[in-house]
Amino acid sequence: MQEKLVVIALGGNALLQRTQKGTFEDQYVNVEKTAKKIADLVEHGYKVVLTHGNGPQVGATLLRHDAAKNMVPPFPLDACGAETQGFIGYMIQQALRNELKSRGIDKYVVTIITRTVVDRHDPAFERPTKPIGPFYSKEEADQLAQRMPGITIKEDAGRGYRRVVPSPDPKIIAERSAIKTLVDAGFVVVSTGGGGIPIIEDGTQAKGVEAVIDKDLGGQRLATLIGANVFIILTDIDGAYVNYGTANQEMIREVSTGKLQSYLDQGQFKEGSMAPKVLAAIRFVESGGERAIIAELGKLTEALEGKAGTQVVSPRA
Amino acid sequence: MQEKLVVIALGGNALLQRTQKGTFEDQYVNVEKTAKKIADLVEHGYKVVLTHGNGPQVGATLLRHDAAKNMVPPFPLDACGAETQGFIGYMIQQALRNELKSRGIDKYVVTIITRTVVDRHDPAFERPTKPIGPFYSKEEADQLAQRMPGITIKEDAGRGYRRVVPSPDPKIIAERSAIKTLVDAGFVVVSTGGGGIPIIEDGTQAKGVEAVIDKDLGGQRLATLIGANVFIILTDIDGAYVNYGTANQEMIREVSTGKLQSYLDQGQFKEGSMAPKVLAAIRFVESGGERAIIAELGKLTEALEGKAGTQVVSPRA
Repeated sequence: MQEKLVVIALGGNALLQRTQKGTFEDQYVNVEKTAKKIADLVEHGYKVVLTHGNGPQVGATLLRHDAAKNMVPPFPLDACGAETQGFIGYMIQQALRNELKSRGIDKYVVTIITRTVVDRHDPAFERPTKPIGPFYSKEEADQLAQRMPGITIKEDAGRGYRRVVPSPDPKIIAERSAIKTLVDAGFVVVSTGGGGIPIIEDGTQAKGVEAVIDKDLGGQRLATLIGANVFIILTDIDGAYVNYGTANQEMIREVSTGKLQSYLDQGQFKEGSMAPKVLAAIRFVESGGERAIIAELGKLTEALEGKAGTQVVSPRA
Repeated sequence: MQEKLVVIALGGNALLQRTQKGTFEDQYVNVEKTAKKIADLVEHGYKVVLTHGNGPQVGATLLRHDAAKNMVPPFPLDACGAETQGFIGYMIQQALRNELKSRGIDKYVVTIITRTVVDRHDPAFERPTKPIGPFYSKEEADQLAQRMPGITIKEDAGRGYRRVVPSPDPKIIAERSAIKTLVDAGFVVVSTGGGGIPIIEDGTQAKGVEAVIDKDLGGQRLATLIGANVFIILTDIDGAYVNYGTANQEMIREVSTGKLQSYLDQGQFKEGSMAPKVLAAIRFVESGGERAIIAELGKLTEALEGKAGTQVVSPRA
């Protein structure tokens, strides 16, 4: 298993616990803990590329842009996503480099600002589904709609009004060749944060779009495009389950993509939560990857050794 | 002059004009214009690394963090700087890649989140001088001082109270090896934005500090460390002047580092404006660089051909 390339999609809890308010210090302490687990892999000889979510972080960024809107112009969502890639990448590269250095491992960790190409004809653009940013009153929502024509605002379960944006399918990681170059040269790379900054292409011209990309699906595209051996999705439970939340729930240990797809088709996995992870795992293996794993951060090394997590393999394996 | 490596420090006006309010769209249009000039160099066969300031941008970021402080915790300055590197890098890599692609040049542009090591014993830490972020009333300033003990707040010329932070001298660009790897592989790299995120080192452990680094001095360290042939500082005037603003002002065409140092010692250049540019140019050449140039963006190609700007060379050249 030495010298294998592993792409790791960090779960939200690697950056921020649900009970925390999101100070930089809280997030940095979490990242330091995560860094120890990642450093174990580097020490074992794996080549590592990290990707991460940015849901709570971009939510806070949107709140800040909104709160200061009478003093400085608020940015569109793609630029806000780029901001979160900057500061989250900074935390990860610093904490992980520190951890590696303290172990005497002279490896550098670098963050690449990453754009993800989506299809401008993706049907997701017809029906925005992802709520983002602050809650508004009816009056504020009307003002916002006037200021930004073309956006979609929906009432959110009695809690107020909120913008919703499309979540299109990631197609290409625009910066894949730089990431591959750095990995081949021995760097640990942080990339495709928040699924990547969504862009569409029109001829030679790329431009940002107001959308969010699922981080696990974005991570899968990255893993496939750079030829990773293993794609591992970390979350806060130990794997994917059938009959989850019932008396006869059962964790899936090793599963072929076909079998897992049938579970997915049955609706065994929660939309917006385990379902996209399972889909990303299936896609990685069906695109030629050796193995995809869904596991918890605490058991990262064991999961890579096949001793923990849900192991997704090809039916031919 | 083919295949030479040029590090370009973009001036503030490459991102934002003084008359603009700082919408993302305004900044992106400016970056698109800048990208055309940079693309000319790439087309001429130069290897290019870009660095940029972030003064107005980090000012806006600090305002946003302050405005939303009762909803989401404000970040320290190093994290805010990382946010600006993310979104400014995103703009530059997208606009420049678009421009190159429209010319049929298949070169990628990537942004590296960059930290700059400063000396924790730098005397600048004893006397903070750089005003940052919003203006406060006396009462707000007192509250802030209570919330963040250890910070320095000063009265700013009758306009209110403002935080001041140290501006230490940049020593090492922490991500230099990744930048060099990408340059050697043919990428255009955006790096060391805002002079880099300032960090100090304590044994194996790096940590962010609340400080700002001069972007031209940071750019010089980068240029020297990656072995650039030419370091070019772009600004909104055509070069460095002696007797600037007087009847007998004269632009400096070609000058040795020794002569330029004597002008600097005479106080010919404005502190916080032309003086650090001149110092950065001197340092680059004295550290072994072939040539440093101070010029305006509109004459970038001519400046590199020696036909515009202030050309700083070694006395031995």
